Amino acid sequence: MSDPDRAVSRETRADPPLWFEAHVFGCTNRRPDGHRRGSCAARGSEPLRDYMKARAKELGLQGVRVNSAGCLDRCEFGPVIVIYPEGVWYRAEKREDIDEILTVHLRDKGRVRRLMLTERDVPPPKG
Amino acid sequence: MSDPDRAVSRETRADPPLWFEAHVFGCTNRRPDGHRRGSCAARGSEPLRDYMKARAKELGLQGVRVNSAGCLDRCEFGPVIVIYPEGVWYRAEKREDIDEILTVHLRDKGRVRRLMLTERDVPPPKG
Repeated sequence: MSDPDRAVSRETRADPPLWFEAHVFGCTNRRPDGHRRGSCAARGSEPLRDYMKARAKELGLQGVRVNSAGCLDRCEFGPVIVIYPEGVWYRAEKREDIDEILTVHLRDKGRVRRLMLTERDVPPPKG
Repeated sequence: MSDPDRAVSRETRADPPLWFEAHVFGCTNRRPDGHRRGSCAARGSEPLRDYMKARAKELGLQGVRVNSAGCLDRCEFGPVIVIYPEGVWYRAEKREDIDEILTVHLRDKGRVRRLMLTERDVPPPKG
């Protein structure tokens, strides 16, 4: 009899290597002013995304891609960024925050604890 | 003397749990008609993204988030999708492709080999 867990595990081992060593997604979703949840763009994420892209290039970070993304659904803690494959989330509100994420996390493979979201940063129930 | 590798390794172990079990990003970047590289939106990615979001909901997939993203820079192989944390890339050109990714990869934790990009799917040099 086949073992589905083992089959999946074999498949997973055969995944191609990561295309980007670090893939960064910054939410640039915008909701109308006055929306209950707010939005990352309303909290200033768009110029920060532009800044992050430009600074990543200036720093010459290899294997790092910075992208915009739609609503990541942790709006209350925004402007939010998530970095994969590690799946670490940050709140970046100003250029100094972006600089620290770029140098400490993306260049030096560390973590920026003061900006990191945790499992306790849970949005309020919907509706 | 401190060992930076060990320090990073300690940090990494302390990362919060994944917020989404599977985080799907579909490129919806659009370039002008006739652009040398084309773009995922010009290849029809936007309605496919909408379809994927709706079907993921209908299938009741827990812990799966489907997002739009800006240019993922593998335009020639688009419309492209990347799924994290595993970092597996797919080319999804029609609804049947999306259905297969949703059921085989996201629901059943398998892989859709016929649609998967590999390390050999390299865009042409820039410029």
